[in-house]
Amino acid sequence: MAKMIIMYEQPKDIVGFEEHYFNVHVPLGLKIPNIIKDSVHHVIQSQNTNLELYMITVLEFESIQKLTEALASPEARAAEEDGVNLFKYVNPPIITIVN
Amino acid sequence: MAKMIIMYEQPKDIVGFEEHYFNVHVPLGLKIPNIIKDSVHHVIQSQNTNLELYMITVLEFESIQKLTEALASPEARAAEEDGVNLFKYVNPPIITIVN
Repeated sequence: MAKMIIMYEQPKDIVGFEEHYFNVHVPLGLKIPNIIKDSVHHVIQSQNTNLELYMITVLEFESIQKLTEALASPEARAAEEDGVNLFKYVNPPIITIVN
Repeated sequence: MAKMIIMYEQPKDIVGFEEHYFNVHVPLGLKIPNIIKDSVHHVIQSQNTNLELYMITVLEFESIQKLTEALASPEARAAEEDGVNLFKYVNPPIITIVN
């Protein structure tokens, strides 16, 4: 099981961020092939960090091969390009790929 | 669905960390009540951060209530107390609770 974990810090504009995120970015993200589970979470509490973590999204794939294949797709490219539109509301998120 | 996401940075002593983590800490963690799914992942790649993330563990609970109840258990206390033993190998992990 491979995952992409995307961590957003506190947005400069929460309303603008959430509106664009849920109405535009998530629908684009869900078109990416090979995703077997997706979840979007608001952070309630953090410890041992100065990061003000706000939202964590987890995309699950069957394997790192399926994830790599997904990231090479036109749908992933479209979601990535839209991601830039979020940066007026929030800093670029920490993105990790885990296996 | 509520989750506890635990993020370890690169250990000072990888062998010592992995040995204690998998042989002692994980078995203690799995005794915590209400966990419906657990997963331990090695980080393959990170973007947009200076953190050298090494390992991410995700514990899933049915609800924030179930998670809160779990954290108040003696089993969670035992795992937390053992966590201190890891700090000779690694910095205290970033711990987030998400909903």
